[in-house]
Amino acid sequence: MYDTITFLTDFGLRDDFAGVCRGVIRRIAPDVHVLDITHGISPQAVNEGALMLARSIPYLPRGVHLAVVDPGVGGGRRAVAIRARDGRLYVGPDNGLLTLAAPPETIEEARGLTNSRYHLENVSRTFHARDVFAPVAAHLATGVEFADLGEEVDPETLVTIGVPEPVVATGGIRATVLAVDRFGNLQLNLVRAHVAEFGIEPGDRIELRFELDPYYAVVAETYEDARRGELLLYEDSYGAYAIAISGGDAGNLTGARPGDEVRIGRAYD
Amino acid sequence: MYDTITFLTDFGLRDDFAGVCRGVIRRIAPDVHVLDITHGISPQAVNEGALMLARSIPYLPRGVHLAVVDPGVGGGRRAVAIRARDGRLYVGPDNGLLTLAAPPETIEEARGLTNSRYHLENVSRTFHARDVFAPVAAHLATGVEFADLGEEVDPETLVTIGVPEPVVATGGIRATVLAVDRFGNLQLNLVRAHVAEFGIEPGDRIELRFELDPYYAVVAETYEDARRGELLLYEDSYGAYAIAISGGDAGNLTGARPGDEVRIGRAYD
Amino acid sequence: MYDTITFLTDFGLRDDFAGVCRGVIRRIAPDVHVLDITHGISPQAVNEGALMLARSIPYLPRGVHLAVVDPGVGGGRRAVAIRARDGRLYVGPDNGLLTLAAPPETIEEARGLTNSRYHLENVSRTFHARDVFAPVAAHLATGVEFADLGEEVDPETLVTIGVPEPVVATGGIRATVLAVDRFGNLQLNLVRAHVAEFGIEPGDRIELRFELDPYYAVVAETYEDARRGELLLYEDSYGAYAIAISGGDAGNLTGARPGDEVRIGRAYD
Repeated sequence: MYDTITFLTDFGLRDDFAGVCRGVIRRIAPDVHVLDITHGISPQAVNEGALMLARSIPYLPRGVHLAVVDPGVGGGRRAVAIRARDGRLYVGPDNGLLTLAAPPETIEEARGLTNSRYHLENVSRTFHARDVFAPVAAHLATGVEFADLGEEVDPETLVTIGVPEPVVATGGIRATVLAVDRFGNLQLNLVRAHVAEFGIEPGDRIELRFELDPYYAVVAETYEDARRGELLLYEDSYGAYAIAISGGDAGNLTGARPGDEVRIGRAYD
Repeated sequence: MYDTITFLTDFGLRDDFAGVCRGVIRRIAPDVHVLDITHGISPQAVNEGALMLARSIPYLPRGVHLAVVDPGVGGGRRAVAIRARDGRLYVGPDNGLLTLAAPPETIEEARGLTNSRYHLENVSRTFHARDVFAPVAAHLATGVEFADLGEEVDPETLVTIGVPEPVVATGGIRATVLAVDRFGNLQLNLVRAHVAEFGIEPGDRIELRFELDPYYAVVAETYEDARRGELLLYEDSYGAYAIAISGGDAGNLTGARPGDEVRIGRAYD
Repeated sequence: MYDTITFLTDFGLRDDFAGVCRGVIRRIAPDVHVLDITHGISPQAVNEGALMLARSIPYLPRGVHLAVVDPGVGGGRRAVAIRARDGRLYVGPDNGLLTLAAPPETIEEARGLTNSRYHLENVSRTFHARDVFAPVAAHLATGVEFADLGEEVDPETLVTIGVPEPVVATGGIRATVLAVDRFGNLQLNLVRAHVAEFGIEPGDRIELRFELDPYYAVVAETYEDARRGELLLYEDSYGAYAIAISGGDAGNLTGARPGDEVRIGRAYD
């Protein structure tokens, strides 16, 4: 029994897609609270959804974590539920969306959603969030036996996605932009160990190179450590390094997008 | 007594409009759950709102269904509540928004919202969602007598809107785009009977013509039945036929908008 | 003890920022309802957030009012909680965001959020909404002693922001656009007294001048008092005067943005 279903999708909020899923859940589990993480994942961007689910999980109550970014709906991809060792349950497509938050080695049990008893009576070919995933999440929250959802799935066979590793050399770091948020901050695939290995620290002046365009920046602890309008590299609130502009929008300035490469070097001037 | 108020508007989420309505409801009915269907209806697009409300209702719990897309606010249009035979209650402007979901022949009783006892004390001329509709919905949920809302309204006098009918001929179908969703899928005014009458079926190759631009497409059951980048015509999850691109955005490609005509013919090549 | 936390930010809904704050609240205060006012404040627009919070408060249940638009996060600005004479509690940064809703003379007590016992264990430098403000709001809702949040703050020392005053002269009014809403309506810093002082009333024809562009308009009580496509000046639902187009988008037509000046004069034609 769980009192919370968290909900992450790429549905946006313009259509009724998230709304009807909430309706389906409430018909099955009227006392369960649906907590929206976001419905703003870019359309069909599985990696972006996986990264956002994984980083938000530590801040969410233990519950059923429903996540749907599902470009392969109606095709061969499996629909799965995962029971992690820490008691969290995950429901969604088996396309890597769930396994950054719940890597195979942390999984107690996984099931394919093959028991139609826990689906809507009519299952469409293109909206499994409404017809399969939401009802399964609702039934799980009300206490349905995990093993009753369908056939057992070997956790090692679940699809996983790789986050690109940065290259740290004496001359610089080659990193990748993982996400660009509403404020234009660019989250990178860098953590403290990478930055320490390269040997830069707060106060140092650096050069950032996107494609051919070089920008000067400062290593900082918070936005206010940089002058207004200055680029900064800082450890963000999720423990990843990010690029921002004090009082501005680094995404707009640099034009950088998820997947873009950025080279970080020392500035000599 | 109802424990759920569903909520659909064209307010968007940038302003506080949906938020203050939630506040008004919670002050009157603190134990009632507000379930957002969407606030993303295009500004003042009554038809779009009516279609979305009607298609989402079967997935929602029985409750009070509050819907506001209200270009005529403050003018002569009536404010109404509808009690349907299936026990659902609808509250909103009498401009056709409610009557695709609740057509006159399904209505048990309708009332004009003329009893100011169930409105806010000060009713503005331009925000009846906050001052009239939300408080009425909240009072209904807490068990106020339906007949006490105001003067009886003959269901046959409620405004209804027509959904355009497609033309099916031997040479082709002339259909209308009803909606374009976040993924760029174009929902048409076609159901299975129309497609069967024309005589095309999954696997067939067809031609789609928007204005002068012809596109080749395939009739398919799901996105994965088409090649990546190929247009497909398929029965969508709400039982309407729709046009999509496998792995892409058909709205962006074709530039089609709600109300546009599309001609569907057989492809000979 | 409060059963509602209202929530206003500039986080948008594309990222997980609002979602993780909801998660943090639910872990601390699982029975408290989070009521979203909006997360659509323009990024870092403290004034816009302050105006929207102040105007929505009268429609919201008494509760803990959590508001975060926080360009100075991690710098020297204080984090505060305010207890107003009417029993409402406010939590957010001390940058003027809260003090239009809760001006110093209405405040019973204010505290700086210096007691880390009510924060998350690890407080980042750039996301105090998640690490400080949301947990403090949740603890307050569950009944934590207000005085235990941190050191007392003199209400007179809280940052306040000024709303520009219009200039009313015999020849015209010089007003400022405070906000542009989803429908393109331009909210001005004018109330009924200003308009009465200038001496125009419903039915009068006026001239609106943005920068150099003059537009003819009518003073009206509601949208339907103007002809379709005509500009109108009317008292909006929050008691401020606003400019709209009947059946159109005045923001798009005029290009006006918050902070822009508009001159209102009599039309002689």
